[in-house]
Amino acid sequence: MPFVRIDTLGTDPARLDALGQAVQDALVETLGVPPADRFQVLTSHDGVTSMLRHDDYLGIRKDDSVVFVAITMRAGRSAEQKTALYRRIADLVHERTGTEPRNVVITVTENTLVDWSFGDGEAQYAPAGAEPAGAQP
Amino acid sequence: MPFVRIDTLGTDPARLDALGQAVQDALVETLGVPPADRFQVLTSHDGVTSMLRHDDYLGIRKDDSVVFVAITMRAGRSAEQKTALYRRIADLVHERTGTEPRNVVITVTENTLVDWSFGDGEAQYAPAGAEPAGAQP
Amino acid sequence: MPFVRIDTLGTDPARLDALGQAVQDALVETLGVPPADRFQVLTSHDGVTSMLRHDDYLGIRKDDSVVFVAITMRAGRSAEQKTALYRRIADLVHERTGTEPRNVVITVTENTLVDWSFGDGEAQYAPAGAEPAGAQP
Repeated sequence: MPFVRIDTLGTDPARLDALGQAVQDALVETLGVPPADRFQVLTSHDGVTSMLRHDDYLGIRKDDSVVFVAITMRAGRSAEQKTALYRRIADLVHERTGTEPRNVVITVTENTLVDWSFGDGEAQYAPAGAEPAGAQP
Repeated sequence: MPFVRIDTLGTDPARLDALGQAVQDALVETLGVPPADRFQVLTSHDGVTSMLRHDDYLGIRKDDSVVFVAITMRAGRSAEQKTALYRRIADLVHERTGTEPRNVVITVTENTLVDWSFGDGEAQYAPAGAEPAGAQP
Repeated sequence: MPFVRIDTLGTDPARLDALGQAVQDALVETLGVPPADRFQVLTSHDGVTSMLRHDDYLGIRKDDSVVFVAITMRAGRSAEQKTALYRRIADLVHERTGTEPRNVVITVTENTLVDWSFGDGEAQYAPAGAEPAGAQP
């Protein structure tokens, strides 16, 4: 159910792919997201026609390895789960791409169960009654 | 008032344009959005510098025709309206581009009336009192 | 804490940069955001592989200078603050890039303090108790 956008600089497809996998694995490990529940847009910016702008907010130094991870998911995860998620994303990104945790910026935006269609034109997790009887999984 | 991001693969501008029109028409038909209330970012990904990652969540098979539709709109639409919207988006996308409904993934994120400026530096739908008298539409 | 996506057309990196700076300065001036609290994705669309679609909603005429500004920030700002923000963004964009206020479209999406990690794998503004003692700023 998470829908994830990852934005970074550079032109290495392998790094981009590794970033996506790291974030997905962290979601699976810390929130119990099913492994196949993966919907990601991964974008490398060239620094000319598209750019990332950042600064050293809170004294956390950033450089051109910066990664922005924007996660949309349904409401309901606890603060503890979210902090575990951030920790795990940063660690897996570091482990697999060498990008240091200081360069990983994460934002979460929440919605509700009825705000998702995973295909077939259906709201698979809509509350009962929102669709004709029998249409719910 | 919807702000829509559509992400897909491929390099066919006509398909991209048709996807945008299909989503707008579905919003108009199912939610009563005014036809001119259209704000869309349509992006084709090349699979190298930018990628989509997806899997067959809930057993719904996806392939390289996958389309991610992310809609930001003000809160207030019912579950019935949302499910009708997803159905209509999937059907219109299929009808006009051949992309099968299984490949259409939709997420909705909601905000409030004061969270929009449609131009001119004004919050056109801000509650009365939030702007100088006479500034409201 | 704002995370900002700016989407526009054209290929002028200086304009893109100026748009980003204008939005950040407006956030600082009207919401009191710290100047270093800057996280932006700035994207120019070529009109072929990626496009912006817009119309003259509410009679506000748009053209190819259109700029979409999508701001994610924590909840808590008043309607007055938001309207001041929109005004200032439009004015600074006009002043610095020549793009008229009618062409500046802004959306805000809100989340909460625990929904942010500014680096180091930590939720810097999580409520006390969500992380081990001593981990809070």
